[in-house]
Amino acid sequence: MQRRVLTIVGVGLIGGSLGLAARRRGLFQRVRGLGRRLESLAEAQSLGAIDEAHVDPAAALRGADCVVLCTPVDQIAEQALRYAPLCGPGAVLTDAGSTKRQIVDAIEGRLPAGVRFVGSHPLAGSEKKGPVHADADLFRNRWVVLTPTARTDADAADAVESLWTDVGARVRRMTPEDHDRALAVTSHLPHLVASALAGVLPESLRELTATGFRDTTRVAAGDVALWTAIFEHNRSALVDAVERFQSRVEEFRQALLQHDSDAARRLLAEGKATRDALSKVT
Amino acid sequence: MQRRVLTIVGVGLIGGSLGLAARRRGLFQRVRGLGRRLESLAEAQSLGAIDEAHVDPAAALRGADCVVLCTPVDQIAEQALRYAPLCGPGAVLTDAGSTKRQIVDAIEGRLPAGVRFVGSHPLAGSEKKGPVHADADLFRNRWVVLTPTARTDADAADAVESLWTDVGARVRRMTPEDHDRALAVTSHLPHLVASALAGVLPESLRELTATGFRDTTRVAAGDVALWTAIFEHNRSALVDAVERFQSRVEEFRQALLQHDSDAARRLLAEGKATRDALSKVT
Repeated sequence: MQRRVLTIVGVGLIGGSLGLAARRRGLFQRVRGLGRRLESLAEAQSLGAIDEAHVDPAAALRGADCVVLCTPVDQIAEQALRYAPLCGPGAVLTDAGSTKRQIVDAIEGRLPAGVRFVGSHPLAGSEKKGPVHADADLFRNRWVVLTPTARTDADAADAVESLWTDVGARVRRMTPEDHDRALAVTSHLPHLVASALAGVLPESLRELTATGFRDTTRVAAGDVALWTAIFEHNRSALVDAVERFQSRVEEFRQALLQHDSDAARRLLAEGKATRDALSKVT
Repeated sequence: MQRRVLTIVGVGLIGGSLGLAARRRGLFQRVRGLGRRLESLAEAQSLGAIDEAHVDPAAALRGADCVVLCTPVDQIAEQALRYAPLCGPGAVLTDAGSTKRQIVDAIEGRLPAGVRFVGSHPLAGSEKKGPVHADADLFRNRWVVLTPTARTDADAADAVESLWTDVGARVRRMTPEDHDRALAVTSHLPHLVASALAGVLPESLRELTATGFRDTTRVAAGDVALWTAIFEHNRSALVDAVERFQSRVEEFRQALLQHDSDAARRLLAEGKATRDALSKVT
């Protein structure tokens, strides 16, 4: 059954890709984009990611069946609370934020009657920004974590699950807390590590970097404001992950200091085993 | 002027790529491969990386103008010393090892009269192994660090420089010590970091990794024995690099613990500035 209106708030890489995917598959009669920058909206529209471009929330949200907030994590909760009264009863809101606990806590139980929210996080993205990098296949075969709680409306959760599976993703349900602990390790820690590694490279050595340094630091090119907010949102789980990583680096340092090739070999072998296993998981 | 015979010791990714590049450009009349495993040699020969496959060092080295040791760093010095007497006067030896100080120290001044050695390190490679991944363009526009010392024969250094520029690389000369300090930061540290990061991922979270984790850990799939030897060869410079990196990670942790978003933002911005700059350097 085709739903009527999808409103995407924030038509960057994620929002633009969702619009492209939804329009290409004919999931909604209309796909609206809501944003603040006319330039991004016009670009998203010309790329075919949205049917309508809006800077007025009331116009963008009127009659929307589904609203997806694809904005930075520090804006999502505030926007959800501000926009919910502009949606009609029956509307389902979700988001695409990289953290979940703070966002879900701030929204659930505070929406007007008939407007429902379910947190979600598509594990897809890039260090690139903007609708120009949008890709209709961005979510294909990727995981989306859905974070319903005891307070979440079950039908709303099913509706949001369908949205993501309809654009090709696989959905896994977790609590917001479990999501944040998991993503601290699988996404936020790698970003911190990549940034720290890039940060120790002196300018004089830039020419002497090859693919190894470049791959290992690629995500450090991501948007600074976005990641500052993600780190702040998920600070306690991220601190735990950082500490586990620090212990592991210190084991390497001790192995080097003590000429303990067996220990270095074991650490390298464990890292390789995990990395090789990832190549087999899709 | 076409030289006569190039002998490549170890026809894996690097040796195989060198053979392909040299043969495609007609730099030598004959390209010989010397190895221990008949299977790799046969594969390299069938891929067009070498004209002749040898397991007998004497036959492989007789009359060679240039010998390139493309074997693991812990085998290079021993092989150079053992093979040099099998080469004729005028032969020039070099290597492709990722560390230089130990190798150069162990070889220079110990070769028979008329046989000369210059250390080199092509900053090209991959986590992949074997001649099947060899690529005639592997060295194109890549840097090769040449490490002549006060004891190195100037003509031999020029000959080795020509070999690398002839296969498309750019050459930069550094002392072995400066090379090792630089590569500790640009290559060995990223490997250690990627491995440590892969090492903290529990099996239950493998599915929840996306491109960020995978890119940041890609090099951790590299050969364990090879990297154990590189770490051991370059341990003191690598320990220094690890300690600089540890300080940086600790700065991040402190920023998180203290809710200091300004500090986190500054660290992320510095990392991004460096990573963005790398995208402009080739």
